[in-house]
Amino acid sequence: MTAKSWVLTDRSKGIWVEELELTAEDLGCAGASVRKRVLRGGLSDGVDVIEVDNGQFSFTILPTRGMGIWRGRYRGLDIGWQSPISGGPVHPGFVNLQDRGGLGWLTGFDELIVRCGLDSNGAPSTDVVADNMGNPSEVEVTLHGRIANIPANRVEIQLLPGDPPTIAVLGEVDEAALFYPGFRLSTCISTDVGANAISIDDSVTNLKGTEAEFELLYHCNFGPPFLQQGTVLKLPARLIAPRDARAVEGIDTYAEYLGPTAGYIEQAYWYEPLAAPDGATLALLRTAEGDRGVVVRYNTDQLPCFTQWKNTAAMEDGYVTGLEPGTDYPNAKSFERAQGRLRRLAPGASHEVGLRLEVHDNAAGVQAIEAEITEIQHQTGLEVHRQPLPRLSG
Amino acid sequence: MTAKSWVLTDRSKGIWVEELELTAEDLGCAGASVRKRVLRGGLSDGVDVIEVDNGQFSFTILPTRGMGIWRGRYRGLDIGWQSPISGGPVHPGFVNLQDRGGLGWLTGFDELIVRCGLDSNGAPSTDVVADNMGNPSEVEVTLHGRIANIPANRVEIQLLPGDPPTIAVLGEVDEAALFYPGFRLSTCISTDVGANAISIDDSVTNLKGTEAEFELLYHCNFGPPFLQQGTVLKLPARLIAPRDARAVEGIDTYAEYLGPTAGYIEQAYWYEPLAAPDGATLALLRTAEGDRGVVVRYNTDQLPCFTQWKNTAAMEDGYVTGLEPGTDYPNAKSFERAQGRLRRLAPGASHEVGLRLEVHDNAAGVQAIEAEITEIQHQTGLEVHRQPLPRLSG
Amino acid sequence: MTAKSWVLTDRSKGIWVEELELTAEDLGCAGASVRKRVLRGGLSDGVDVIEVDNGQFSFTILPTRGMGIWRGRYRGLDIGWQSPISGGPVHPGFVNLQDRGGLGWLTGFDELIVRCGLDSNGAPSTDVVADNMGNPSEVEVTLHGRIANIPANRVEIQLLPGDPPTIAVLGEVDEAALFYPGFRLSTCISTDVGANAISIDDSVTNLKGTEAEFELLYHCNFGPPFLQQGTVLKLPARLIAPRDARAVEGIDTYAEYLGPTAGYIEQAYWYEPLAAPDGATLALLRTAEGDRGVVVRYNTDQLPCFTQWKNTAAMEDGYVTGLEPGTDYPNAKSFERAQGRLRRLAPGASHEVGLRLEVHDNAAGVQAIEAEITEIQHQTGLEVHRQPLPRLSG
Repeated sequence: MTAKSWVLTDRSKGIWVEELELTAEDLGCAGASVRKRVLRGGLSDGVDVIEVDNGQFSFTILPTRGMGIWRGRYRGLDIGWQSPISGGPVHPGFVNLQDRGGLGWLTGFDELIVRCGLDSNGAPSTDVVADNMGNPSEVEVTLHGRIANIPANRVEIQLLPGDPPTIAVLGEVDEAALFYPGFRLSTCISTDVGANAISIDDSVTNLKGTEAEFELLYHCNFGPPFLQQGTVLKLPARLIAPRDARAVEGIDTYAEYLGPTAGYIEQAYWYEPLAAPDGATLALLRTAEGDRGVVVRYNTDQLPCFTQWKNTAAMEDGYVTGLEPGTDYPNAKSFERAQGRLRRLAPGASHEVGLRLEVHDNAAGVQAIEAEITEIQHQTGLEVHRQPLPRLSG
Repeated sequence: MTAKSWVLTDRSKGIWVEELELTAEDLGCAGASVRKRVLRGGLSDGVDVIEVDNGQFSFTILPTRGMGIWRGRYRGLDIGWQSPISGGPVHPGFVNLQDRGGLGWLTGFDELIVRCGLDSNGAPSTDVVADNMGNPSEVEVTLHGRIANIPANRVEIQLLPGDPPTIAVLGEVDEAALFYPGFRLSTCISTDVGANAISIDDSVTNLKGTEAEFELLYHCNFGPPFLQQGTVLKLPARLIAPRDARAVEGIDTYAEYLGPTAGYIEQAYWYEPLAAPDGATLALLRTAEGDRGVVVRYNTDQLPCFTQWKNTAAMEDGYVTGLEPGTDYPNAKSFERAQGRLRRLAPGASHEVGLRLEVHDNAAGVQAIEAEITEIQHQTGLEVHRQPLPRLSG
Repeated sequence: MTAKSWVLTDRSKGIWVEELELTAEDLGCAGASVRKRVLRGGLSDGVDVIEVDNGQFSFTILPTRGMGIWRGRYRGLDIGWQSPISGGPVHPGFVNLQDRGGLGWLTGFDELIVRCGLDSNGAPSTDVVADNMGNPSEVEVTLHGRIANIPANRVEIQLLPGDPPTIAVLGEVDEAALFYPGFRLSTCISTDVGANAISIDDSVTNLKGTEAEFELLYHCNFGPPFLQQGTVLKLPARLIAPRDARAVEGIDTYAEYLGPTAGYIEQAYWYEPLAAPDGATLALLRTAEGDRGVVVRYNTDQLPCFTQWKNTAAMEDGYVTGLEPGTDYPNAKSFERAQGRLRRLAPGASHEVGLRLEVHDNAAGVQAIEAEITEIQHQTGLEVHRQPLPRLSG
């Protein structure tokens, strides 16, 4: 068996495939399938989706929404969360990022994994950039940037030989314009047949002729049945600090989660994660019983910052937690710059990121992950700050 | 004959019907038809429309624009108005609500009946809301809110047995997101075969886990041949007051309309309507001759406020009047709150509204309506204020 | 042979043609073809394009983007430029004009010829307009206005008999709404079979019942192989002035162009063009060798102002020059008003513009154009101002 490829979209070559269905037979993998289609009606009208099923783990990729991952299901367990948006995924044409003081991104937010960036992520703010004249110009920066609402100009499905074989979906999303920063996100989202994991291999390239700052954060969002009363977040870290006064209130139980709680106000914690010598690290969200867990693996050389977002509000208000490794913390970009956390890319240079989502539906799997975390942590003590740190909270 | 149903859109079930045509034979009603299609080209590209014809009264429903009613025609008479937008109905993707200081809603405004809400209606303003941290945050509020530019996630046609049978179009439109208010508009727009009326039965439900304010106004808009020189608005009321200095100028003739008048500046009047003991009331727009009229029936328990919008400008500038029953007056939301006019919904609670549009094309019909109005009014005197009232004009 | 016509879009009549292909045989012109289709995928999803090939000159018209001309190719030479947007043409649903302080227009900007207007063109600014009450109201004005992001409501292809025959594409684009200005752009974009030119015949009509100001500028953009190291701009003029301090730096070489230059900051020059007695004039962009040139012909009675935009940045940053005849200079509209340069249209009145793009791929053609320019210039001296002029630079 050799690699097979199906190009679905290529704007530069005028390629477009409206629908594609690859069966287990096409893929040569029992139980596997890939289906590409265009959603119609409501808020999803015109949204391209690629539904991947590796036989055990199914999930939906959104070329129209910056190659985000919408929702998944692993052996009967839902992976993702229930956003108050019931009709998604949402076409970017229905999203106005500037709405409600720069919070409009929320009107499209219902993904399992959504990238925040590439020019900026984090809270709405203002920043000073060079205008077309090279003069400093103040601009508004909207919540979590533009990349999640830009469609991919190139999309390809690949089947890679192996034992097991791998299903890969490649995409290119450009966040670029004249007198704007110009970045290309090239992603390969892959899963081995029968595996409990999705791998994301991303590259952010500076398309422009001058050096540029960028920000990139992976907003990985989980609700039930992984998030529930007593669920715990574990990750190796050298430091944890509350984002603000609200997070200070919960510092004694930062790692633990409530069940759905009407009126709950979000709490966020900044982590400085620890990693193995090669930078590899992970974060685990597991149930109180330890019989189920989701893991986000990443590399601190690529994504040195980690944010825990606890939003254990009522189910109907969006009961969810975000595990958010990033190049930076989702503060105002100007603050992150001042703290020296902005990465820069030379013309043509790229920043590579590998991120992997794993699901464990049994105690043995969860315990093995906990052992990994303990192994990384054991070298170093964990500082838990009870008050916000000036260098982390903007 | 039993009820029949055709689900056209159901995002949660992945149902989508691109085109549907129900003939008189399908419906079992001579002269009746229902046609669902998707408009293509220009500003309407991608707009779903459902064209209902009950044999005497035809009208177009816009699932893509929040289940508004675009235009109608009753026995050769146009129902609606000619907006300066000639290429509508307009897809929300071409509308930026924040344009021109929050007036962008106007770039999509050409409907016969358009709902204004659900979080807010009225003039652009600023308001203070709780942000994701529960802290007060100032946000811009755009003209007449978002609901008219949100597509329905569920659309269904029903044929209900009866003598005559009833054609009903059901829709669900969600105005909801994380950290935003969350409302569902559930509507049933129906007409009896051969009837001179359209009934709208709406329910606004608070989807969120906390109590929420909402605003809802039915902007019912009429031009020729109902609005013309000498046309009169009649409705039972205890009080009328001009909105502002411009309306003061016209207070002596508030009920009467000019023909198309180049350079005319809009005048608006606030009414406190009277109703029958069960809350039922109505407003009549009739020609000077009394041979034609349109009636808006509603209930003051559901919609206690009524606004008359006179915009008898030149035809090409939008010669139109709005009959606007609402939960509130279309002032800044903060003003309506201060006046105690904002309705609140507990988590999961709903506010029901029934509204009915009737057309009369003969003097006897118009006279019967006038008798109804007189009957409701006769118990109470009408206060006509010649100056704006502080409690009504924000 | 008589004229033939194919109506592709007519919103008022419900006409829509998804695809059309006219072959040389259909057109009766060897080598000629016209193809209408809808692009799918990425930023172009849903964009109508009409690809015209006259046998020597091919170019793409964008009904979805206000009847702009995207790119062309003449005898193997690319006409247009390479915008940092690689996936265009961009659907207006992906463009938010208010983004980044009113610069969002740039996120859709990759055309060869794009109209800027109709209510305004030029830099983002604020202006004071009459609101719905006739009161002065401050509104934001976004870069280069709305017309390039409004789809045409009517599109027609015509084949006009002649020797050679002419291929014409007609379009109507409305920039209009209640309480907004209301303009209709009616365009006829035509080319003779085998010719080296495209003609644009535009009419801007005031649809409203009151007099209105308007602005219209033709942003004609060229990169390689016409723009390159040593390329020169020539046009007959009575006056040239730098826009600002940055342009002052380059005043000695205003007419000459650098090759792609990393970090180059744009320079712009205002021209008061000279014309033949009937107003006809032209501008030539030619290579240093004089073997290639593009010409923009226009009429100073219709378009009295000319702007030269030099942006010889790195290729990847958008190496381009704009030749921009306009009714005004692309300053803030309020400044142009104060300088008396705003044109006004009575109700129903129109402003006609003829503009022609010619390509020359040989020295003789270029020399003939230079002779035309010399002929117009020779009567008058050219004032080159070395500092910005208060009446031209806002």
